[in-house]
Amino acid sequence: MPTTVRAYAAPSEAAPLVPTTIERRDLGPHDVLIEIKYAGICHSDIHTARGEWGQVGWPIVVGHEIAGVVSEVGAEVTKHAVGDRVGVGCLVDSCRECENCQKGLEQYCLNGNIGTYGSVGRDGKPTAGGYSTHIVVTEDFVLRIPEGVGLDVAAPLLCAGITLYSPLTHWGAGPGKEVAIVGLGGLGHMGVKIAAAKGANVTVLSQSLKKMEDGLRLGASAYYATSDPDTFSELAGRFDLIVNTVSAPLPMDDYLALLKTDGTMVQVGAPPEPVSVTLGSLMGGRRSLAGSGIGGIPETQEMLDFCAEHGLGAEIETISADQVNEAWERVVASDVRYRFVIDASTI
Amino acid sequence: MPTTVRAYAAPSEAAPLVPTTIERRDLGPHDVLIEIKYAGICHSDIHTARGEWGQVGWPIVVGHEIAGVVSEVGAEVTKHAVGDRVGVGCLVDSCRECENCQKGLEQYCLNGNIGTYGSVGRDGKPTAGGYSTHIVVTEDFVLRIPEGVGLDVAAPLLCAGITLYSPLTHWGAGPGKEVAIVGLGGLGHMGVKIAAAKGANVTVLSQSLKKMEDGLRLGASAYYATSDPDTFSELAGRFDLIVNTVSAPLPMDDYLALLKTDGTMVQVGAPPEPVSVTLGSLMGGRRSLAGSGIGGIPETQEMLDFCAEHGLGAEIETISADQVNEAWERVVASDVRYRFVIDASTI
Repeated sequence: MPTTVRAYAAPSEAAPLVPTTIERRDLGPHDVLIEIKYAGICHSDIHTARGEWGQVGWPIVVGHEIAGVVSEVGAEVTKHAVGDRVGVGCLVDSCRECENCQKGLEQYCLNGNIGTYGSVGRDGKPTAGGYSTHIVVTEDFVLRIPEGVGLDVAAPLLCAGITLYSPLTHWGAGPGKEVAIVGLGGLGHMGVKIAAAKGANVTVLSQSLKKMEDGLRLGASAYYATSDPDTFSELAGRFDLIVNTVSAPLPMDDYLALLKTDGTMVQVGAPPEPVSVTLGSLMGGRRSLAGSGIGGIPETQEMLDFCAEHGLGAEIETISADQVNEAWERVVASDVRYRFVIDASTI
Repeated sequence: MPTTVRAYAAPSEAAPLVPTTIERRDLGPHDVLIEIKYAGICHSDIHTARGEWGQVGWPIVVGHEIAGVVSEVGAEVTKHAVGDRVGVGCLVDSCRECENCQKGLEQYCLNGNIGTYGSVGRDGKPTAGGYSTHIVVTEDFVLRIPEGVGLDVAAPLLCAGITLYSPLTHWGAGPGKEVAIVGLGGLGHMGVKIAAAKGANVTVLSQSLKKMEDGLRLGASAYYATSDPDTFSELAGRFDLIVNTVSAPLPMDDYLALLKTDGTMVQVGAPPEPVSVTLGSLMGGRRSLAGSGIGGIPETQEMLDFCAEHGLGAEIETISADQVNEAWERVVASDVRYRFVIDASTI
């Protein structure tokens, strides 16, 4: 029998979020019922709910940065127990059979994975996200949140954290590597923390020097304003890896010129508009422009363990659910340091 | 005392090439005097001589696919001896001190390498290329051409060969890998041969099926026309590596969609115009768009040895020097299978 739970939903692409109730599916043998404690606010939530990435089924409950406690488990669940501290990120299932799923790259599932919201679940019903008091997720897509990290600061790790951890790991950020993080927002601030914890030398490239003090405190050793043309001449050929978290189109050639030979610039924010690239910018130095999206389930667990080990969490501003519309406006205006987290007890 | 030698020069950006004489520098202690036997015609020669890549000092003698025999060596030369079969590619010197030169990546010399033509040599004089009877080059930038490969079919290896060998090697073309070569011209035909010899499964993506028989004979196992939209649906997600030899702007997103997860598309032809890329094409599958330019000296030697071992040379049409203007027109019209080589005895 499905369970009725409280949630905040977007009734249409233009309307503000409102309190409502939704049904969560009855617990299958491998399902876990999670009492959500905190849900992070990701810019993707806003893009999706406002139809900026295409039509969705309204009303929609978004949220894919979920931290909570297991309150019930299905008969055959072995990975989690009642009372466990757990998290759910952007994915709640995948085909589990394709080459990528077999390799733990469920984020690149070749048959289409199932998103935490805005997808259709295996039960044929639309999935609904973390702006809610409870969620039911199959045990393989539920992550363990280690004791060392608070549930509130852990919530944003499930999207912002893994989105940066994955490319930083894949492209070898570590001792002796010069890493630049473009943009110091929800994604970027986790990039600085993780890259610094991995031992890389971290530079922030931000539009202005407004957040410089924060950037240095979070682990960067240098901070430059991209509005200053001197930045691009001074830093030419400096970086092994640039992770670009800005989802507006940037002058790519200017940034590619900051890479060393064999350097890579990885895009993790996604401007819908195409960008212009002069291919000579890549050829002169065997440079690469790459993209990366979140991370797979094994790597997300690895990231949570890494963050606990290094005492890392997101920098957050906790809000009650009735502040969510105001918080969205502030996210759109880039006026948050650095992630809003909804206290789910107020939903 | 400088030596006067015969050459074919472009008198200006618009005029046809004409026979002339040029001075080669007196042999320094580390210099090698090479009697040129064959010089390949590369499209870059034409772009440069016609000022399409910027102003150059006319008259200019181009040509950077040079194969010949050592006819004299400087007092301290140890690497080459009179009578040796040797080659010279796109570079005749570099700073030798920067991080890249130290790693044998002279093509990415951080202080600016010295091109075989259109550069200024260490003697302060403009360098002049292979459309000539003799050339003087410092011994470290002279390559050994192994016995197994004819000097005529070896000449194009010095640019076309290494331009494909380097990315195919760097990005791991080999057994179990699906490799696509875009464009079956001077560069592409060497890409097919080398990738097949490395054990990769090779597909040619060409505008039409006109050269299909050739492509399969050269080592490809499949051949598709990019003018047929079905090609892009049929091959979606197929390739580990795509090497794009076409220097006109292509619809990049269509090609990027042909890559597997973690696949790379490498640009070796260089359209001067920027191309348009939707970054989502890269993010959905952690794909990369990269660039590569020729190769370093150690890798060029490795390539020549590899080609000799596998019996590879370019497919050529040998011409006499007085046919060079006509040959250039045919290169511009893509009417050559697959490289013109000038018999330098006719210069």
